[in-house]
Amino acid sequence: MPTFRSIVPISLEVLHSKRGHSPGVCVNGFLFVSGMLGRDGDLNVILDPEAQLRQMFENFGLVLGEAGCGWEDVVELTGYFIHLRRDFDLFMTVRDRYIGKPHPAMTMVGVAALAQPGLICELKGTAKLRG
Amino acid sequence: MPTFRSIVPISLEVLHSKRGHSPGVCVNGFLFVSGMLGRDGDLNVILDPEAQLRQMFENFGLVLGEAGCGWEDVVELTGYFIHLRRDFDLFMTVRDRYIGKPHPAMTMVGVAALAQPGLICELKGTAKLRG
Amino acid sequence: MPTFRSIVPISLEVLHSKRGHSPGVCVNGFLFVSGMLGRDGDLNVILDPEAQLRQMFENFGLVLGEAGCGWEDVVELTGYFIHLRRDFDLFMTVRDRYIGKPHPAMTMVGVAALAQPGLICELKGTAKLRG
Repeated sequence: MPTFRSIVPISLEVLHSKRGHSPGVCVNGFLFVSGMLGRDGDLNVILDPEAQLRQMFENFGLVLGEAGCGWEDVVELTGYFIHLRRDFDLFMTVRDRYIGKPHPAMTMVGVAALAQPGLICELKGTAKLRG
Repeated sequence: MPTFRSIVPISLEVLHSKRGHSPGVCVNGFLFVSGMLGRDGDLNVILDPEAQLRQMFENFGLVLGEAGCGWEDVVELTGYFIHLRRDFDLFMTVRDRYIGKPHPAMTMVGVAALAQPGLICELKGTAKLRG
Repeated sequence: MPTFRSIVPISLEVLHSKRGHSPGVCVNGFLFVSGMLGRDGDLNVILDPEAQLRQMFENFGLVLGEAGCGWEDVVELTGYFIHLRRDFDLFMTVRDRYIGKPHPAMTMVGVAALAQPGLICELKGTAKLRG
């Protein structure tokens, strides 16, 4: 008997079937969102930096929506960057189209590698479930 | 008065006494598991990659067991890899011996260093407590 | 309607207004603390390693205090280090002035970059809210 609910938006189904991830998990009033990447539904990396970050947020938003949450329910985000200082401002510009106030808790660090070449950012997080 | 319960399996006791970590902490319906590594009880690194990853999962499993949880209660995993792309498939092969469906949320990133030379992966995570 | 409470200590206000972070977020019995850094209130990096780590813990402590928590409520810490092996012992020496037993769950990894040059460590974590 599973003790939690797995969240798998249709366009992220490959993550579940081929990568062994649940894009999201609902448990104890929280939604845990797996590290999202700026890839399309077939795991192709979007090469343009801004478009890639936008796709990453879109994918994150699909998980939120499937769990009945919105961006205003996001309480914590952790961003992993290949070029942290170069991309911080661009990340925030894209992020501000999705997230307003009150801001979530945030942690952003530079990492050595992500899952595929060309990826510049991975974003995981936690949201509060409604109801 | 502590406000949470510290989980210290006997064979991970050195982590607690010499490294100032609780291998696990139980609080508010969750078990938080510290970053586990493929080391034996005296903090010696297991050099063979597959054996090291197996030991890492065994150590993680000891924390789960001591808290009354099983692998099916794991809701979220974060993996930190020295060679993310080289070791991803091996990691998943080992993981699949422990974890089935529904899959947990997962985030996997490449890092610059782990606690000791020779370590290739660190795995932290969160489980749902039973009862 | 926000679904969580944003924690913004006065001397970390710049993080909120200029960086789009809530230093802390209270939700469902937990306080999530954003990655704290050893900077002063104007985001100037403290260059001396020990002083920088102390400032990082002081900043973390401000978030705890503003949420009505103490260090004994911290259940989980994740540390991101530029020089993990060089700075581990120094980190623990500073940490032990703040945190006793029972120890929190801890994960410590080496990263490729932090937000500003000269930063050697970032510390995020989770605490249990009181009553």
